[in-house]
Amino acid sequence: IQCNSGLRSGRFSGVVNIILNNPKKRNALSLAMLNSLHADILHEADSSALRVIIISAEGPVFSSGHDLTELTSKQGPEHHTKIFETCAEVMHLIQDIPVPVIAKVNGTATAAGCQLVASCDIAVASNKSTFATPGVNVGLFCSTPAVALGRAVPRKVYAFTGAPISANDALLHGLVSKVVPEEKLEEETMKIVRMICKASRPVVALGKNTFYRQMAQERKTAYRLASQVMVENLALIDGQEGIKAFIEKRQPVWTNSPDNAHE
Amino acid sequence: IQCNSGLRSGRFSGVVNIILNNPKKRNALSLAMLNSLHADILHEADSSALRVIIISAEGPVFSSGHDLTELTSKQGPEHHTKIFETCAEVMHLIQDIPVPVIAKVNGTATAAGCQLVASCDIAVASNKSTFATPGVNVGLFCSTPAVALGRAVPRKVYAFTGAPISANDALLHGLVSKVVPEEKLEEETMKIVRMICKASRPVVALGKNTFYRQMAQERKTAYRLASQVMVENLALIDGQEGIKAFIEKRQPVWTNSPDNAHE
Amino acid sequence: IQCNSGLRSGRFSGVVNIILNNPKKRNALSLAMLNSLHADILHEADSSALRVIIISAEGPVFSSGHDLTELTSKQGPEHHTKIFETCAEVMHLIQDIPVPVIAKVNGTATAAGCQLVASCDIAVASNKSTFATPGVNVGLFCSTPAVALGRAVPRKVYAFTGAPISANDALLHGLVSKVVPEEKLEEETMKIVRMICKASRPVVALGKNTFYRQMAQERKTAYRLASQVMVENLALIDGQEGIKAFIEKRQPVWTNSPDNAHE
Repeated sequence: IQCNSGLRSGRFSGVVNIILNNPKKRNALSLAMLNSLHADILHEADSSALRVIIISAEGPVFSSGHDLTELTSKQGPEHHTKIFETCAEVMHLIQDIPVPVIAKVNGTATAAGCQLVASCDIAVASNKSTFATPGVNVGLFCSTPAVALGRAVPRKVYAFTGAPISANDALLHGLVSKVVPEEKLEEETMKIVRMICKASRPVVALGKNTFYRQMAQERKTAYRLASQVMVENLALIDGQEGIKAFIEKRQPVWTNSPDNAHE
Repeated sequence: IQCNSGLRSGRFSGVVNIILNNPKKRNALSLAMLNSLHADILHEADSSALRVIIISAEGPVFSSGHDLTELTSKQGPEHHTKIFETCAEVMHLIQDIPVPVIAKVNGTATAAGCQLVASCDIAVASNKSTFATPGVNVGLFCSTPAVALGRAVPRKVYAFTGAPISANDALLHGLVSKVVPEEKLEEETMKIVRMICKASRPVVALGKNTFYRQMAQERKTAYRLASQVMVENLALIDGQEGIKAFIEKRQPVWTNSPDNAHE
Repeated sequence: IQCNSGLRSGRFSGVVNIILNNPKKRNALSLAMLNSLHADILHEADSSALRVIIISAEGPVFSSGHDLTELTSKQGPEHHTKIFETCAEVMHLIQDIPVPVIAKVNGTATAAGCQLVASCDIAVASNKSTFATPGVNVGLFCSTPAVALGRAVPRKVYAFTGAPISANDALLHGLVSKVVPEEKLEEETMKIVRMICKASRPVVALGKNTFYRQMAQERKTAYRLASQVMVENLALIDGQEGIKAFIEKRQPVWTNSPDNAHE
């Protein structure tokens, strides 16, 4: 796996580029690849300069999912358990990490590869991309991918047949955020990156964290939680600066500091 | 705020028109506006003639969300808390009130303005309307709007960037119920109003109340609750009249009375 | 009701065809029809050869929902309760039975008829099909259909007016899986049937069962449950065979036996 932390002339740009780079093996999510992905997502997690993580892939396949050679009876159930637990940890980490994670998809994303796309906060896909959960064809129903997919798209879209859907159908049903021609994929992704980087880091972090927390609650509890967060957000230095700048009709100047409590 | 209770020659038509009428301030949901909205929704609540509430707005902006001048550090966290709590009360009231509430949108709906649209039972939008949660740009992540939006549209549509979506994309993802050309907005809204007014008031009230209650339950509990409601619905005078009229091939004559228990 | 268990020259093909065949009564889901549907779904349930169930209908109406002549005050609340409980049992059975159930819709599906489509795992519709919950017009709000619909489509699509939506809108919002011209309906349905029959029966059964179980849980619990199921799936004889066949680049040979534990 290639993790480009965006070091430019010795200075971290804030954007971590994670590139699945085993195209010969269709970027299979082997245990090594999953561990590498986990480490790369955490790579700059302590840096207050970290703003966004992009996951893309080399070659015509974004990712084909688990490495089936690791799932034979030789390895046994303990090893299988380890693989699926590691995979789930990566998916949880993507939602728990305080910066947005973008899947930049230019090709086929199947099984756990499709799960990876569904788990990201934002997904931009080229129009040649396709998405499928074909595990059932090799006798392994995509039950873990269905956890992410079932929460991202309407139930009837998650077919029991493993048939692929196009990028446009994926957009239609909310699996991806945006579909563009292949030659515009980089430009569109960077447009989103720039929008995220223009915002205050602690504000985005608080917003992302709150989104997943409140969505797991029923509506009245969710409103109580979110209302309280709005007040906390306003008490941040960056919260105050944003409102002030808006009223004074000028660009806000963010501290971007995680330790952002207003004194 | 302009609340037209539809008094026509001294007789209430059953339709309450609430018009956000501060276009110079982009119909910001100031605390005063929220309190006024709350009062206007309740205005005819005790009238058994009330059938539907329409929320629309004057000017090119449906509503820009909270009034940011009320969210500076000067007012302090107690005042901020009051604003978000009042806002949540308005959103809950829209779903708790026993008649359908229609958002009639002809322009931009952002932040808490977009939340207001998402909270209504039905939303009709002109095709020039746009929807966004851009709070992140002023340092205040749209966490409370996300409670309503996250329950209305697929997760990936709720962008972390604050970028706007068109009326057609809003329709595609279920944020609005119908999109029409601007010149057809009134006609389309009134078509829906007429369909609602043709139905029995206590039947619609029971149906709306049950919908939100059962959606908060898991499927088996939801079916138990809804099955029981169907039997209660049939025991209403209007429930019996509807079935009888259908069998006798004639128009039903509703009592429309809330006290509709069959003796 | 016509239940064709697909006996071909004395051998069960694995496909059960259930055809609602009371077109004169618009295939109303009378208590007799519901009991018949329940029995037909269970008809081959004990046969390990059962692979898929197709529910279709004769005539221009797929199903108009409950038989209103059974819902008058003459029958009384006990009888009404029995009808709605039986209906809910059929809907639960469709999701509990270990093979995929396909709704093959070529016409109007309203009220409990629309609920039946929403409850199936997969729905293929001809483009002339329409869907509606018009009970409110006869004084009986479609509260039980809303349990299935509210879980299948975005909230704003479930109108309070009873207005019908087209097959394409139903596809857009995830109520159906696929829309085709009428003359392609049989072909498209059989394509899906063949895909299901090509897969291993116990793998599909485990996948379907897990899907509905994990969707009722919050994400972290869902991942724990699904990860464990993946390990169990790999321990099935058919799970091992699928992986082996894939690695050996040959077609898998399924046991298709429910008693599929690897020794």
